Amino acid sequence: MNFSDHQIGIYAQGMFTDQRPQITTNLAELEAEAAESLSPEALGYIVASAGSGSTARANRDAFDAWRIAPRMMRSSAERDHSCTILGTESAAPLLIAPVGIQTLAHPDGELATVRAAAALGVPYVHSTQASHSFEEIAEGGGDAPRWYQLYWPTDESVLLSFLGRAKNSGFTTLVLTLDTTLLGWRPADLDRGYLPFLSNLGIENYLTDPAFQAGLEQSVEANPVAAAMHWAQMFPNPGLNWSQLAFLRENWDGPIVLKGICTVGDARLALDHGVDGIVVSNHGGRQIDGARASLDALPEIVDAVGEQMTVLFDSGVRTGADMAKALALGADAVLLGRPFLYGLALGGQAGVEHVLRCILAEFDLVTSLSGHTGAAELGRDSVVHA
Amino acid sequence: MNFSDHQIGIYAQGMFTDQRPQITTNLAELEAEAAESLSPEALGYIVASAGSGSTARANRDAFDAWRIAPRMMRSSAERDHSCTILGTESAAPLLIAPVGIQTLAHPDGELATVRAAAALGVPYVHSTQASHSFEEIAEGGGDAPRWYQLYWPTDESVLLSFLGRAKNSGFTTLVLTLDTTLLGWRPADLDRGYLPFLSNLGIENYLTDPAFQAGLEQSVEANPVAAAMHWAQMFPNPGLNWSQLAFLRENWDGPIVLKGICTVGDARLALDHGVDGIVVSNHGGRQIDGARASLDALPEIVDAVGEQMTVLFDSGVRTGADMAKALALGADAVLLGRPFLYGLALGGQAGVEHVLRCILAEFDLVTSLSGHTGAAELGRDSVVHA
Amino acid sequence: MNFSDHQIGIYAQGMFTDQRPQITTNLAELEAEAAESLSPEALGYIVASAGSGSTARANRDAFDAWRIAPRMMRSSAERDHSCTILGTESAAPLLIAPVGIQTLAHPDGELATVRAAAALGVPYVHSTQASHSFEEIAEGGGDAPRWYQLYWPTDESVLLSFLGRAKNSGFTTLVLTLDTTLLGWRPADLDRGYLPFLSNLGIENYLTDPAFQAGLEQSVEANPVAAAMHWAQMFPNPGLNWSQLAFLRENWDGPIVLKGICTVGDARLALDHGVDGIVVSNHGGRQIDGARASLDALPEIVDAVGEQMTVLFDSGVRTGADMAKALALGADAVLLGRPFLYGLALGGQAGVEHVLRCILAEFDLVTSLSGHTGAAELGRDSVVHA
Amino acid sequence: MNFSDHQIGIYAQGMFTDQRPQITTNLAELEAEAAESLSPEALGYIVASAGSGSTARANRDAFDAWRIAPRMMRSSAERDHSCTILGTESAAPLLIAPVGIQTLAHPDGELATVRAAAALGVPYVHSTQASHSFEEIAEGGGDAPRWYQLYWPTDESVLLSFLGRAKNSGFTTLVLTLDTTLLGWRPADLDRGYLPFLSNLGIENYLTDPAFQAGLEQSVEANPVAAAMHWAQMFPNPGLNWSQLAFLRENWDGPIVLKGICTVGDARLALDHGVDGIVVSNHGGRQIDGARASLDALPEIVDAVGEQMTVLFDSGVRTGADMAKALALGADAVLLGRPFLYGLALGGQAGVEHVLRCILAEFDLVTSLSGHTGAAELGRDSVVHA
Repeated sequence: MNFSDHQIGIYAQGMFTDQRPQITTNLAELEAEAAESLSPEALGYIVASAGSGSTARANRDAFDAWRIAPRMMRSSAERDHSCTILGTESAAPLLIAPVGIQTLAHPDGELATVRAAAALGVPYVHSTQASHSFEEIAEGGGDAPRWYQLYWPTDESVLLSFLGRAKNSGFTTLVLTLDTTLLGWRPADLDRGYLPFLSNLGIENYLTDPAFQAGLEQSVEANPVAAAMHWAQMFPNPGLNWSQLAFLRENWDGPIVLKGICTVGDARLALDHGVDGIVVSNHGGRQIDGARASLDALPEIVDAVGEQMTVLFDSGVRTGADMAKALALGADAVLLGRPFLYGLALGGQAGVEHVLRCILAEFDLVTSLSGHTGAAELGRDSVVHA
Repeated sequence: MNFSDHQIGIYAQGMFTDQRPQITTNLAELEAEAAESLSPEALGYIVASAGSGSTARANRDAFDAWRIAPRMMRSSAERDHSCTILGTESAAPLLIAPVGIQTLAHPDGELATVRAAAALGVPYVHSTQASHSFEEIAEGGGDAPRWYQLYWPTDESVLLSFLGRAKNSGFTTLVLTLDTTLLGWRPADLDRGYLPFLSNLGIENYLTDPAFQAGLEQSVEANPVAAAMHWAQMFPNPGLNWSQLAFLRENWDGPIVLKGICTVGDARLALDHGVDGIVVSNHGGRQIDGARASLDALPEIVDAVGEQMTVLFDSGVRTGADMAKALALGADAVLLGRPFLYGLALGGQAGVEHVLRCILAEFDLVTSLSGHTGAAELGRDSVVHA
Repeated sequence: MNFSDHQIGIYAQGMFTDQRPQITTNLAELEAEAAESLSPEALGYIVASAGSGSTARANRDAFDAWRIAPRMMRSSAERDHSCTILGTESAAPLLIAPVGIQTLAHPDGELATVRAAAALGVPYVHSTQASHSFEEIAEGGGDAPRWYQLYWPTDESVLLSFLGRAKNSGFTTLVLTLDTTLLGWRPADLDRGYLPFLSNLGIENYLTDPAFQAGLEQSVEANPVAAAMHWAQMFPNPGLNWSQLAFLRENWDGPIVLKGICTVGDARLALDHGVDGIVVSNHGGRQIDGARASLDALPEIVDAVGEQMTVLFDSGVRTGADMAKALALGADAVLLGRPFLYGLALGGQAGVEHVLRCILAEFDLVTSLSGHTGAAELGRDSVVHA
Repeated sequence: MNFSDHQIGIYAQGMFTDQRPQITTNLAELEAEAAESLSPEALGYIVASAGSGSTARANRDAFDAWRIAPRMMRSSAERDHSCTILGTESAAPLLIAPVGIQTLAHPDGELATVRAAAALGVPYVHSTQASHSFEEIAEGGGDAPRWYQLYWPTDESVLLSFLGRAKNSGFTTLVLTLDTTLLGWRPADLDRGYLPFLSNLGIENYLTDPAFQAGLEQSVEANPVAAAMHWAQMFPNPGLNWSQLAFLRENWDGPIVLKGICTVGDARLALDHGVDGIVVSNHGGRQIDGARASLDALPEIVDAVGEQMTVLFDSGVRTGADMAKALALGADAVLLGRPFLYGLALGGQAGVEHVLRCILAEFDLVTSLSGHTGAAELGRDSVVHA
């Protein structure tokens, strides 16, 4: 079965049973549709970007500037998009990006998301700032491949505890986020004075952590505010530096991926420091206003290190055609962020599945219609720059 | 008589008889005017493009980037735009593009269109997915030159039957569409769960086909749904490949044109495989979101194969000036799609004629005012890139 | 007195007498303000451009792409923008562009305009399609320098009569318009079936012409429609060609200027044919949709022929800064079209004067603030391309 | 303490005390928010730019074209943005731009602004056209470093008096504005006939000046109008030229900075004439419509003279990311104009402080998140051109 069979399924359901998709299939309109169902706080936290939103716009413009150059009559009836990413098998070169505090979008939060990932056979990346703990995901999340995204806490005991719990909960690959050692300037949240973590939302991994609790008990007041303040003391980590990677390697025996690389220089440093992969990303424009588009950085980074390490991509992927473009420019896989969250907001697990099915169906159609029998065939020749 | 005499006719009618055109003469506004008269389903099917609409926008942007560089005082009083395209004579280098299921726009459907083509003396290309059969067009369509556009059905008996019926019905040239071996991801239709073919609309060529009927009778249930399902089984053809062209040549003795070429590579392959012509086209942006503009591909394709084979063009032509630009960039003729359909929606045969007269009048004015005595004089020097 | 003294005058009047300008001083907003006071027919005829309006937009975009690079402390207290254009003295390198049928904008029509030109000391160019005859302008128009714009009628007796009357009425320079041998495709007029000339508006030069009347009397019916039809037979002249210029030279002893040049090729031909000057112009976007911006053609034309002949410019000039840019790119003077017409619509002669004073005041400020003591100092170094 | 601690302060206040910022933290939205609280006259004077606003738009577009290329894991926990600008110490490379007549925005005018500057530890530049005199600022303005911006009056006695009073009032550095020897063409003011100086607003430095008063008493009528007229006679100074700088050097013993440089040529002349610094600026687009973006001129000017003199920048800075870009392109510091004025309009001194705190917080976050431990580390490698 090809992903695009979802398309004919929608048509058949519409014409023969009069049922229509409850969520739009127009992936470019998903944000607007989701915005109507989100609270102002959730809307501000999820949709809005850093500063004036310039980076998020640049991400989209960069996708618009690369155009697919389709080839005809290449016999793409049989298609296989499955792949192995750092040892993790996936039905397609797509992973669920790490996104914190998903209960803002829907009460089921990350549990709905990981179950949808399992249904589609794609890896789920668990955020350090999730609303559900490692163990909850492991127990209730089904058999989706699980990776763990780390915000490096400045409390080493908590760091080690996180790594241990992640490993014990079946998270195989570690994704260290580099670009959020401080939170970006986010006016939508600032204008509301809204930082959900300070209400103990999205810090479930911490609250359930023995080392965090141990540290907390040493503080004067062990109340909810104290927990938030304890978190607030260990989350910011602007002192993070390359020399610390050795410590991580000593304490994690699976693949290590660095997320947030935007320059060839840092890609080369990552290679020099022996990590297994990188994610070319500007955090979806949520950290630095006026930053370069993630996609603009991708080709030169792939040229520099693509043959020697795994290069993943995120920031700005909205459609199956976007996914095809990023892969054509050399990404080994893409991480999907906001779109799945919009699906979550609109329909919980079913909503996430809807979005994943739509994006993969369009991806399948686009790759086939442009002459490829699978994601692996996409290459620099598949696109032109406008 | 020059095409532009239509202009002075409109003025004379307005000033002396107080009658104004019932349909706008502003070809750039035609879509908006037609949109008001179409049902939501027809609107979604006809106007909307694949995915986010990025390819359709790119088509238009590409026209905007090429600018006419008019020459003065070249004595263009006598003008002749007539031409012979692969042996077919036409009053101008313009053909009616193959568009399926035209009864969505107007009850008279393709019959109105082909009659309008006859009135103007331009060729009509009949879609495999038309609302009227080959024979109906042949009988009721007047003397317009007739070409046949083929979606290659996977049932070989139906394919051969189609070719035979087309030939018997006076269709002289075969246009094989390459870019729609699967339907593109079209949210406007998907959100409505609307695929008209599943209601047996736009499959009249099949329903009237002996081979199709024979196959249908072998199915368990011979009811309307069964016909639609039978169609749905033979329409998708992603396995289509270059080696199959020999079979087509054996079974069609007229010119063969490949429609949907977007790259020099495929244009060269078409030449190597001995076809008579190609249509540089991205299906008006209806198949792949994020594809390159058709017009951006035209010059390099003309440079590569233009002297050795007929190069036609479609995707994005809205005005007479657009037509002039495509011809200047080397197209031997253009296919006009949505605009004539908007005319059909707004006024049936008269509406199609209105649009054709307007576009040809503007084309005549533009070519004359820019110093050409006919379409054939348009060349690379007639335009500059902005 | 410098033109910019108008600025301090407006401020003084506002602050000390509480009187404000009755027409906006924002030259970019003039069109919108004028649009409110024009009838739909006049609005369509005056403001709208050919086809989709793409050429008019390109004209504006081209101005936006060139940027003034101001120089400081160049001591520009004393400024002189006066100049001599083909022997005609002007207070500034600006002429009133030939615009037909100005009574559409205001009952006083061209008489108001020519009087305003006289008040400002700039030349007025009289359109063949004016609402007032040569003689009326000569008698009632004051002492503005007068040029005559010719649409070459196909009736040679009328042509010769026009030339003679113009000369007798004190029009010193002949401007032959090349780009309107046919009217462009103008949907705003076509949709209204509105061509004012067919109501005998804007053909006053013809109606008062002995040769025209003589021809008319030979027609079957000598009624108003007959006059319009007689005009309609001699106005279109797509057969116009370079060989005819010799005839013009024989029958006109003043300078001859060709208006509508958009390419280096035609500029060189103009030079070869011994004309005295050219106007780089695309008729304000009113003739060919999708044509190149007039300003984009200017620098290369100036490079090719600027040292050997007078190069004037029009199409897209809206502000004093625009005027400065065109002069910096090598134009010897600019022709101002629509803006003065908007002033005419909003206030008759006073309105035209207002627009001229504003544009010249801004021009004076811009040239001074960018380091020039007069229009003649503007050069290629005064601008950069963005 | 880092500037970005302001961010966590806003969040803590919001979450723990339910108090939100009274003025938006979205620096890109500040103008719209301020516009609602300004009178039409103040709005027109403060927000609007010269002519069509093209220069102001170009300033913003230029910032959009340069993109930050962030580096990761560079250990930026300790950050220091303090700097010394021509001997003046500042907490960050940011100065309060000279803006006249600030009482238009808020009754407290420049006094509120200079106190806010003091609170943040950044220099305040006093406009010649201020609503408060040198002495008022010195007495009531706290300990902000004070610079003085000079519009060179054509009355030498007033000039010398201004220089003396400024020096006596503790203004250490002189900023001579070059680009406003005449006021630009400002339609928003002209349409209202509004020039506040003619009502004796914004000429407090003059009204309190002995030399000005002495000159005034010699005029026929010593009434308010006479004062305005006396000002109007000495303000315009289009004769300003390079040879006059020697006089300034003789009569000012502190650093001299030239403001309004837009070309390499003028930057080199400034260097040749021995000034201490320049401000690359187009006066925020308020003087010449259609001028080049200030930021587009910056890199080439820095390349030409940056190693030999201080290069400051203004025009278009709205956010902390903008500030980072200008510094990365070689500016030694930026002057902030309209944004602080919007803060002033919205909240007096507290409003200015709010804007300064927000912009510096975002600047601190952006520089840290992009891998810098302080403003001084920003360089050409920190950005890429899109």
